Amino acid sequence: MAPEIRKDPVFGRWVIVASERGLRPNEFKPGGPELGHVCPFCPGHEEETPPPVYTLRNGEGGDWRLRVVLNKYPALAAGGSAANVPDGMYEHMDGIGSHEVVIDTPFHDRQLEDMPVRDVADIFRTFILRANEIKKDPGVKYIMIFKNFGQHAGASLAHPHSQIIAMPMVPIRVVTEIDGARAYSEKNGRCVFCDIVREETGFRKRVVGENDNFLAITPYASRFSFETWILPKKHESHFERMESGLAEDLASIVKGTIGKLHSALEGIAYNLIVHSMPVQDREAGHYHWHIEIMPKFNHMAGFEWGTGFYINTVSPEDAAEMMNSGKKFKI
Amino acid sequence: MAPEIRKDPVFGRWVIVASERGLRPNEFKPGGPELGHVCPFCPGHEEETPPPVYTLRNGEGGDWRLRVVLNKYPALAAGGSAANVPDGMYEHMDGIGSHEVVIDTPFHDRQLEDMPVRDVADIFRTFILRANEIKKDPGVKYIMIFKNFGQHAGASLAHPHSQIIAMPMVPIRVVTEIDGARAYSEKNGRCVFCDIVREETGFRKRVVGENDNFLAITPYASRFSFETWILPKKHESHFERMESGLAEDLASIVKGTIGKLHSALEGIAYNLIVHSMPVQDREAGHYHWHIEIMPKFNHMAGFEWGTGFYINTVSPEDAAEMMNSGKKFKI
Repeated sequence: MAPEIRKDPVFGRWVIVASERGLRPNEFKPGGPELGHVCPFCPGHEEETPPPVYTLRNGEGGDWRLRVVLNKYPALAAGGSAANVPDGMYEHMDGIGSHEVVIDTPFHDRQLEDMPVRDVADIFRTFILRANEIKKDPGVKYIMIFKNFGQHAGASLAHPHSQIIAMPMVPIRVVTEIDGARAYSEKNGRCVFCDIVREETGFRKRVVGENDNFLAITPYASRFSFETWILPKKHESHFERMESGLAEDLASIVKGTIGKLHSALEGIAYNLIVHSMPVQDREAGHYHWHIEIMPKFNHMAGFEWGTGFYINTVSPEDAAEMMNSGKKFKI
Repeated sequence: MAPEIRKDPVFGRWVIVASERGLRPNEFKPGGPELGHVCPFCPGHEEETPPPVYTLRNGEGGDWRLRVVLNKYPALAAGGSAANVPDGMYEHMDGIGSHEVVIDTPFHDRQLEDMPVRDVADIFRTFILRANEIKKDPGVKYIMIFKNFGQHAGASLAHPHSQIIAMPMVPIRVVTEIDGARAYSEKNGRCVFCDIVREETGFRKRVVGENDNFLAITPYASRFSFETWILPKKHESHFERMESGLAEDLASIVKGTIGKLHSALEGIAYNLIVHSMPVQDREAGHYHWHIEIMPKFNHMAGFEWGTGFYINTVSPEDAAEMMNSGKKFKI
């Protein structure tokens, strides 16, 4: 079955049903391919991925230093119609869109926090470049850019990679977040994220990183222990409109934050997600793009993820102190 | 630090920050207590839990057959004020409420699907009885009743147990669900859940269980592979107002559904959550209580849980067919 997007009749949330994606290889599953043995993302295996849509060359390890390819097992793919089709009392639409994989580096074992800042900056510049290319299709309403590290965060391959999914609708979570930010702005006359930057810069106890252009914090109402957000200090609603001159500072604070996370909690799985305005929307004063990094603990919080009801057992102030201490912890 | 409820300034969602809960024993963690060795929920260890608030006696295994105790490491507890306290630009309130644990059975290894229907019905009757008792406090706005099975679903003890959390506010997910149901009802003049019962009873391909009073389905826009919902056929907005005569039928369909889930996917972790109207709200024509059962795959979907953006690789029609087949699968 080709990917299909189904609408929940109660919440209005869209769910992608993509059966073929269940067939993708998973290095972490019992019986899956051995780690590193047949890695399709390693140099020399380029023919095992679909052809690249973008390549950065002249890497230290050989021919290329970053590749972007179409996902072989896409959540969404080209073709079909964006019309809502009735299905009994329900509705669905074709799973149109695109699903690209950014192979961050040719080095199988070089994680983000171990890469030179320059290479991390290349990853973010690539996100921006691809998002600006993809959004030329007016049917693309939202572009989700993210990175899953580790089995418990949903990664199926160990080789460092990121993902770019272009969607024909705006996910409900994004709509809710923007609505919340708009309500705050209407009430207070300011962007809530600008206020957060100001508050946290003054309070300091939730700061885990800072440079001229970005601030990294453990947010006040952290849903997950050791959750962190990275915010640009200057207001900007769309990630893909970021000046490319900021890429080094962004790379530096992301590398530093993941470094502190992995220094405090060795090897912890995480999802890194870029939150941004829908690509076809105009610049907005009330919404401010940012990055959220959510650690995934194997033994915690399964319940919270499905319900929107969160219990966090490590306060963000404690988490920041632990991340800033340079010590190791077991949670 | 006593539990505190913090409000996210963007989403308006409340997060419980409960540091002491991080200290609770976890049988599943490396270095945690050995399985079954010092189980505080087994007969003979009654003094290791706080005193019971409710006990069902005359069990086949000895003295009691079900106990309800206060959680030793509560997410919320009595005392404090429900007033919103400013905290810089943010707000929080005391973590008031209650957190009870239902010890489902004296038998350490007898899971829900292995219990006699009569014992499962006792668990649901206990939920109803406790909810009706707890809601007498007008400060209690919502009562969340749930069951985590297995490590990946957030369980910290293997002995079969359920949880009842009374909260001083209604979680945002509940508000959103009820708003969605109200919007459907205003548009269509009917309860969306009543419509789902009718639609699925006719379509059949997503039905995994049925009796006189309840229907079990894999919902059309399943967020998670093998997600199931159990709905009462007769409209009722509040779970705790269910006629106690229905408890046997409810027990039977829950037991059957978990049995099919565990028959298809051996030992899979799950969260079982009762969705119901806020306890102080009057009977509503647009909302219909139900139970959602969400399997948790170790290697899947970490991403989706944190974002509200779901990719499901097993269609609900396939999941129903697999659950009804009696065969075993590896996912």
